Amino acid sequence: MACVRIREAIEEDCGTILRLIRELAEYEKLSDQVKISEEALRADGFGKNPFYHCLVAEVLPAPGEPQGPYVVGYGLYYFIYSTWKGRNVYLEDIYVQPEYWGQGVGSKIIKKVAEVALDKGCSQFRLAVLDWNKRATDLYKALGAQDLTEAEGWHSFRFEGEAMRKLAGK
Amino acid sequence: MACVRIREAIEEDCGTILRLIRELAEYEKLSDQVKISEEALRADGFGKNPFYHCLVAEVLPAPGEPQGPYVVGYGLYYFIYSTWKGRNVYLEDIYVQPEYWGQGVGSKIIKKVAEVALDKGCSQFRLAVLDWNKRATDLYKALGAQDLTEAEGWHSFRFEGEAMRKLAGK
Repeated sequence: MACVRIREAIEEDCGTILRLIRELAEYEKLSDQVKISEEALRADGFGKNPFYHCLVAEVLPAPGEPQGPYVVGYGLYYFIYSTWKGRNVYLEDIYVQPEYWGQGVGSKIIKKVAEVALDKGCSQFRLAVLDWNKRATDLYKALGAQDLTEAEGWHSFRFEGEAMRKLAGK
Repeated sequence: MACVRIREAIEEDCGTILRLIRELAEYEKLSDQVKISEEALRADGFGKNPFYHCLVAEVLPAPGEPQGPYVVGYGLYYFIYSTWKGRNVYLEDIYVQPEYWGQGVGSKIIKKVAEVALDKGCSQFRLAVLDWNKRATDLYKALGAQDLTEAEGWHSFRFEGEAMRKLAGK
């Protein structure tokens, strides 16, 4: 089993992160929706007031292996605000390449997010998952998450494109 | 019909906003979950790097009416980050007091949020709604929103409390 470490992403990881973002969208069968560029990821995550934060899961080389560590997953999050509980964390994306499934890499990322959230005084973190992704929903439930759509009936809505412009009178 | 204007909240509105947050949670049958204080709302929304932004809907007095304008609704939002589309807006709460329903106040708040989002270069905004709240879901759909839980199967998950501490090993 590979030795995996979770670390904060640096700007130079953005090319790899974009590749993984595309792999995740493909797995979610929604890859036509990815419009982001590496430049945008660099500017938005590594400026003075970053819009997001990112963790990467890196496989460390075994002793004697010539190649350096390589990134096989990521967790991208930002801070949100609950009018019930105050500042909280939202885990926008979590992804591990299929070749590394079953080694606890996803759990390691989630544990690190929980650590970051508690360190920043947040009492919870949220994420969204597709209902057919049983592998992911089983993992989150096993780790103690609650499915709020199931338990309380929350549905996620989105305004975009033409509807947005019409609303704004533009 | 009352004349209503939407404006940005100021720090002095926080007491009123908290009252409306509690009314909304009561309407959502989840009022036991509200732990926020007026002090936290003041500090978190009106410091140097605010964690949220807020719009209020204010009824203007009719000519000759002695009392000043009064707040009857609010929309609280913040900026989030989509790995598909970049920076976006999340409308955490939207609420109008029942006595002012049917006068287009909610639509006015939503239109203002769409304006803000477009002005800031965001291509979409998201929000969550309880499935039994037909009045709200009908309005959002009429205004052009898509129910992503229904259309794509997104479920909202939350880690909190004991599960969070266990994950973080604390």
